[in-house]
Amino acid sequence: MERYRVAVVGATGLVGQELVKLLYQRQFPLAELRVLASRRSAGKALTLGQRQVYVGEARPTSFQEAHLVFFAANPETNAYFIPYAVRAGALVIEVNQRRDRPQTPLIVPEINGETLRDRVPVLACPGSVSTILALALYPLHLAATLKRVVVSTYQAVSDRGRAAMEELNDQSRRVLQGQGVIPHVLPHQIAFNALPETDVFLDNGTSREEWRIAQEVRQLLAAPELGLSITTAWVPILVGHALAVHAEFETAIDRPEALKFLAAMPGLRVLDDPNVSLYPHPWTAAGADDVLVGRVRQDPTVENGLALWVVGDNLRKGQALNAVQIAELAVRRGWLG
Amino acid sequence: MERYRVAVVGATGLVGQELVKLLYQRQFPLAELRVLASRRSAGKALTLGQRQVYVGEARPTSFQEAHLVFFAANPETNAYFIPYAVRAGALVIEVNQRRDRPQTPLIVPEINGETLRDRVPVLACPGSVSTILALALYPLHLAATLKRVVVSTYQAVSDRGRAAMEELNDQSRRVLQGQGVIPHVLPHQIAFNALPETDVFLDNGTSREEWRIAQEVRQLLAAPELGLSITTAWVPILVGHALAVHAEFETAIDRPEALKFLAAMPGLRVLDDPNVSLYPHPWTAAGADDVLVGRVRQDPTVENGLALWVVGDNLRKGQALNAVQIAELAVRRGWLG
Repeated sequence: MERYRVAVVGATGLVGQELVKLLYQRQFPLAELRVLASRRSAGKALTLGQRQVYVGEARPTSFQEAHLVFFAANPETNAYFIPYAVRAGALVIEVNQRRDRPQTPLIVPEINGETLRDRVPVLACPGSVSTILALALYPLHLAATLKRVVVSTYQAVSDRGRAAMEELNDQSRRVLQGQGVIPHVLPHQIAFNALPETDVFLDNGTSREEWRIAQEVRQLLAAPELGLSITTAWVPILVGHALAVHAEFETAIDRPEALKFLAAMPGLRVLDDPNVSLYPHPWTAAGADDVLVGRVRQDPTVENGLALWVVGDNLRKGQALNAVQIAELAVRRGWLG
Repeated sequence: MERYRVAVVGATGLVGQELVKLLYQRQFPLAELRVLASRRSAGKALTLGQRQVYVGEARPTSFQEAHLVFFAANPETNAYFIPYAVRAGALVIEVNQRRDRPQTPLIVPEINGETLRDRVPVLACPGSVSTILALALYPLHLAATLKRVVVSTYQAVSDRGRAAMEELNDQSRRVLQGQGVIPHVLPHQIAFNALPETDVFLDNGTSREEWRIAQEVRQLLAAPELGLSITTAWVPILVGHALAVHAEFETAIDRPEALKFLAAMPGLRVLDDPNVSLYPHPWTAAGADDVLVGRVRQDPTVENGLALWVVGDNLRKGQALNAVQIAELAVRRGWLG
């Protein structure tokens, strides 16, 4: 079996670390792994089970002879280094994509992996909410054609990195001790609270993330006319997004059919037996590879309506796992050769 | 000024205690206040600022000569005692209503206080989500006639009483210390999690609370045909519900008009300037009398669509404050005489 020289830029972040771990866990055919980060993190060791991996500094020259480079740093750092990786001949997988590069194909392998026929230099992961949402919608869209979707998110703060997780933990401790808190990373207190501001707001009052999710899901489902009405909010959760989804279809679809299509979808798992309180929730979804779906029910307030509750690990399938799956697809297609 | 003999049943619970406090704070014209609870709580003292109030045992004979009785115990206890209070000639205000008494008028004074012309023996508060939601929808419904509303809730656990608040606090402490948790009050761990089960599930997969909110909001808005599609979920919040609301109207309504109608509604306050992160959130809404609304924006995915974010204190306007406001209305109408 062929083996590849792989680099990960931004390897010390939450997503980068998850990505490195997944490359080993999933036995990606590595000839060499370059674990790269900013100068500040260079020289540190990442501990991965029994293994210690030393972090090198990302430089324009870091990608020589690389077959594949993952970019999991901040979007600006990614944008700076990507041209060097492309020029070195590597396939680039952008995990944290900039919002202004609509020409880069967004890939969720279970959804649109097969539609990608030719090697392109850069492939990108959608945002975590988009990936989780699109995976649950896709089999239903194939079955009954989506018309409009209303989504409210219950988002884990780890999408904003380690500092946001520490902020939630610290604030929670302080509140439990009766002390006040001062927010630094998120706009207001997040402990024991809910904040409908996960990104900057656009002029029309929508947030950039709400706008982006709509764009990305339309692209993933190849449904450019699909109406997506979204409210995103941070809740006091460390890992695992939950989504309340209210969908409207062109043709009839009932609960048994929906459950059948959802259960047959790769990357998706149905947990749906309300009588025994079986439905997904973020605490148990954290660490799972699959996106989980439950509380599937008719919505009688609209023609061909369905409501569902979708939960996924925002760091894994939402970001790192999806990136590794794109790389596995590239191996099968022979794009790393 | 006339003064009245008032009793509160269930005065030691979260809502009952809030209610007793509000009667004093709002200077309700009391001649006498009987603070009643189960035998277990009788003899305890409630501390209200400088004041200590002793708790008596609720008995069938507790309501003699009372003008007004609030029922804030569990629905079963309320149902047992209410006939005695009615027979004693008191006006009854049921704060925690049973789900099977649709003949009792549900009152939110700002919405339908004026429609109630004659004294009836029992008046009831809607559930906390219904009251908060209906207050925000009412002025918009008057302006443009609601057609369909999709709502996802981010609910504070105090709706399930003191034990649920203690469970959230205890579990949060344990998780922060790296310890496991065993849920007792809510169906699964609530700390750092989100649970889409706030009540028992009906056969169609809807929960009883989701069903009830739809019924109550239709009744409050006098809109029996209104479509309400609801997902309710507990989040790790102690006090204050947040609601993501996506509404569709019969006639056109834009953001400036919506803001104008919302701002003119008694009991409602607009906090809406996304550029400076001004929108309501539960931590600051706890303790406020008003229901708060922000993030008002067009929803272009549907004709005449608006999205908004609504937050309210579930113990105050959601329950205790609304009950006291019903009593104040009864005083103005001369129904306690």
